[in-house]
Amino acid sequence: MYPNSLKNLIESFKLLPGIGEKTAERLAFFMLDLDEEKADFFVDSIKEVKSKIKKCPICSNITEDEICSICANENRNKDLLCVLEDKKNIFLFEKLGSYNGYYHVIDNLIAPLDGINPEDIGLEKLLKRIKDGNFKEVIIAVKPSIEGETTSLYIKKILEGLDIKVTRIASGIPIGADIEYIDSITLERALTDRKEIE
Amino acid sequence: MYPNSLKNLIESFKLLPGIGEKTAERLAFFMLDLDEEKADFFVDSIKEVKSKIKKCPICSNITEDEICSICANENRNKDLLCVLEDKKNIFLFEKLGSYNGYYHVIDNLIAPLDGINPEDIGLEKLLKRIKDGNFKEVIIAVKPSIEGETTSLYIKKILEGLDIKVTRIASGIPIGADIEYIDSITLERALTDRKEIE
Repeated sequence: MYPNSLKNLIESFKLLPGIGEKTAERLAFFMLDLDEEKADFFVDSIKEVKSKIKKCPICSNITEDEICSICANENRNKDLLCVLEDKKNIFLFEKLGSYNGYYHVIDNLIAPLDGINPEDIGLEKLLKRIKDGNFKEVIIAVKPSIEGETTSLYIKKILEGLDIKVTRIASGIPIGADIEYIDSITLERALTDRKEIE
Repeated sequence: MYPNSLKNLIESFKLLPGIGEKTAERLAFFMLDLDEEKADFFVDSIKEVKSKIKKCPICSNITEDEICSICANENRNKDLLCVLEDKKNIFLFEKLGSYNGYYHVIDNLIAPLDGINPEDIGLEKLLKRIKDGNFKEVIIAVKPSIEGETTSLYIKKILEGLDIKVTRIASGIPIGADIEYIDSITLERALTDRKEIE
């Protein structure tokens, strides 16, 4: 019913996460009416991202250069290495402005039921980096799920014997959240990890 | 903080309606990881839509050909012309499958307060088409707002003296809606336009 090129654009938008048929149609019609100049900018942006952005060979962050701007920065805190499950999260930490160490993105979380085993998530690379480096603390900042916990414990285990502190970011009740709506696992964790008020 | 090409892609996604900073970031990161092949399909789809799709010179529908597939179809009901405010809506009517006449998309609705006057919405073209054609009924299917009503009445007026029936699609309570949540203007209209049960 739609002209072919429009059909293809609708299919293209449907490739994106969270975009169904209706929204894809709306976006495609919007694109139809968009200035030539802006449409070109859109097309060029996609092409540039796909051609220019690579994986940093050290930490797996994204970069347009040989190594990413964080790994290339000699002025950060060389004691700290933060392990993440997703390169996106680097930018969340960077926005905080309070963390000044380095990052390491692993490929996934261990999930044996989904066939993702410890050897599948790039831990040798992490281990080598830690052994070759002078980090004093490894901060594990993966999501507090079963997979996240398993991965954290596994990393703790493979770092045993090295003179390095392994920590994980705190789990508990989000600031401002109503306790009555918090799931029991989180509440249990918040109780276990209680801290003395100083 | 983001590499430049990623920044530009985020800005590109923000051009789209209903997409803010957060969603644009999510989509840009998704695009980063998308197969080369799918990303090419996306880029080509945008380029093709922008280069191939034109306005049908008769009805202002979209088309990849000289005139659109509906205007080119000799087998539709030549008595009926449906006037719409947006080319998108043609596809909604076509999906119904029950309307088999022709369409005419006007450029806008009359809205004097926004500086949109009768002469700005392409009514001469509509009038000429009707005068040159043999339509027996013009069905006005614009939204039932003040602007829509004004536009409908204006079209009715310029068609006076021609031997043609002018109708508008019904307004009222949407099927399945709860009457208690319906605004009073719609309810008033539903009452006025009540129909005898047969």
